[in-house]
Amino acid sequence: MRIVVDAMGSDQNPGPDVEGSVLAAREYGETIVLVGDQARVEQELSRHATSGLPIEVVHAPEQVTMEDKPGVVGRSKPGSSMHVGMRLVQEGRGDAFVTAGNTGAALAIATLQTLRRIPGVHRPALSTILSLHGQSMILLDIGASTDCRPEWLAQFAVMGGVYAERALGKTSARVALLSNGEEEGKGSTLVQESAELLSRSGVNFIGNVEPKDVLSNKADVIVMDGFVGNVMIKTLEAMSRTLFGLIRQELTSDLRSKVGGLLSRPAFRRVYSQVDPFEIGGAPMLGVNGVVIIGHGRSNAMAIKNAIRQARSAVNGQIVEAIREGIEQSSPAASSRDQDTSE
Amino acid sequence: MRIVVDAMGSDQNPGPDVEGSVLAAREYGETIVLVGDQARVEQELSRHATSGLPIEVVHAPEQVTMEDKPGVVGRSKPGSSMHVGMRLVQEGRGDAFVTAGNTGAALAIATLQTLRRIPGVHRPALSTILSLHGQSMILLDIGASTDCRPEWLAQFAVMGGVYAERALGKTSARVALLSNGEEEGKGSTLVQESAELLSRSGVNFIGNVEPKDVLSNKADVIVMDGFVGNVMIKTLEAMSRTLFGLIRQELTSDLRSKVGGLLSRPAFRRVYSQVDPFEIGGAPMLGVNGVVIIGHGRSNAMAIKNAIRQARSAVNGQIVEAIREGIEQSSPAASSRDQDTSE
Repeated sequence: MRIVVDAMGSDQNPGPDVEGSVLAAREYGETIVLVGDQARVEQELSRHATSGLPIEVVHAPEQVTMEDKPGVVGRSKPGSSMHVGMRLVQEGRGDAFVTAGNTGAALAIATLQTLRRIPGVHRPALSTILSLHGQSMILLDIGASTDCRPEWLAQFAVMGGVYAERALGKTSARVALLSNGEEEGKGSTLVQESAELLSRSGVNFIGNVEPKDVLSNKADVIVMDGFVGNVMIKTLEAMSRTLFGLIRQELTSDLRSKVGGLLSRPAFRRVYSQVDPFEIGGAPMLGVNGVVIIGHGRSNAMAIKNAIRQARSAVNGQIVEAIREGIEQSSPAASSRDQDTSE
Repeated sequence: MRIVVDAMGSDQNPGPDVEGSVLAAREYGETIVLVGDQARVEQELSRHATSGLPIEVVHAPEQVTMEDKPGVVGRSKPGSSMHVGMRLVQEGRGDAFVTAGNTGAALAIATLQTLRRIPGVHRPALSTILSLHGQSMILLDIGASTDCRPEWLAQFAVMGGVYAERALGKTSARVALLSNGEEEGKGSTLVQESAELLSRSGVNFIGNVEPKDVLSNKADVIVMDGFVGNVMIKTLEAMSRTLFGLIRQELTSDLRSKVGGLLSRPAFRRVYSQVDPFEIGGAPMLGVNGVVIIGHGRSNAMAIKNAIRQARSAVNGQIVEAIREGIEQSSPAASSRDQDTSE
């Protein structure tokens, strides 16, 4: 397997991206193709013991930054590490692409410039994988599309279900819709119409769930509009950061608390590791013709390594082929009719 | 001032509701009118030292439960403590109504059976007040309406601004829209169209904010669709409960952590009190012809007392009159044309 990694992705690039790749090459034995500024990548590689590791470097003269506008960068930087990396996957010279860079740019470059959508897919979806109490679940869409339509959410359910079964090891993945209440009659028009579609579909639809269920083990796949999903994961992240910040502050406010804080530090680390998004590393962009794993901009080397592990699971699970079949089976007539091919 | 309190509201009613009312009567010196099952309320009152306190009891033969469907209970239980209490306010025999009961039922009974909407108001809004780092802000709508339209959000901005200035002590309240990114072009169609309306309105619109800003001091009023707002506050609550649960669990997992936990307990209490919704007690339902404060079902006596304090601030701030004026000024033509008077 050849996993292409964007060396210029993370906020601190190329350090964490290269180090995570070295760790992954060592641990998984898969070939890692680092794409980026060749000189900088090789300089970074020289800091690590890479002798005998299956690591290649492919030069990309340009770099996408967090400031680049997704609507523009697709056309304006054809030599970026994202373009070059995804093209390698498109041409079959790589099996997956991993980036911790600008998510919107990755989505635009994948959808409009390189990999493009799987036939029949209305809209690609960005996802996140949460893992708590030893169980993982996938949430989508978390920001690819706002103003979603019911048939898009129905496809997200198919794609999320495929991923949960093929890459997360679930059996007959339980699919739910995020709503503001589980009772019938609750939910926006979108949720109500999507529930109607899902209950007639082939997916294992277990109904509506509330935000608290995102932190429980009630469903394996939770589907939502991208605006709502984006607000939700940003809220989870903000609340977690705020609470840990307040705790840190209060635990240094007096001597008693300081001693208590020192003694309970290992316990805190265990809590933190359970809600730490870096433990997962990354989550797939679904609905495009290739495995693309998006990591957090703040990724460290461990997060990059874990994102590469996620890519490996997705390739082994043949998720692109499985999604193609799932979409075909779910609604062949509707999908060929409704596909929006505009750019 | 006469503040009417639903004695049968909280999950543990009438205990916390009555005790909180006694505390409030003692601390604020305002008359508290307890509405509920007279025998049970008086029995509960007899457990407290109420001699000389301005507390009255009004009998209500029925009770709204958390299981009651909002769409049905408005008509099916005309003798409920919510109906009786809101009617007292409607008839001028009370200045505000406080309940920790079924929020959907309170909304239906206020809007359709008793107080009704302020003329020109498209939709009433439920709000929540967050207080962090010593600053409070009001978020709305958090669940009264899904599928909101831009002109509804524009009114929420007016109502929230009035509340922030009149009851929370803000000067020229900063109003923001919740979005999935601050940049122009981000946001759902609803957010984009609402931003357009708000930038042409009289409110102090500061633009779009992200979820992390809900926990900062960037805005005084944050406006959003009720579905999104409901998901957001439930996510905040779920994340907070999950984190404190994990911390409690890990701090009892071994002796070292236990000792650390005991020593840092006061620090934790300080953290908890900063994110504890009971410190605020309740938040207003806005857009109806009367002050209505909704508390959490799990309210304890302190939360009820704080909800009564919130009601008192709202009455002193004459928020109903101020909202009426604000709505009239904001768009007199539009508001008389667009008002939906169907029930």
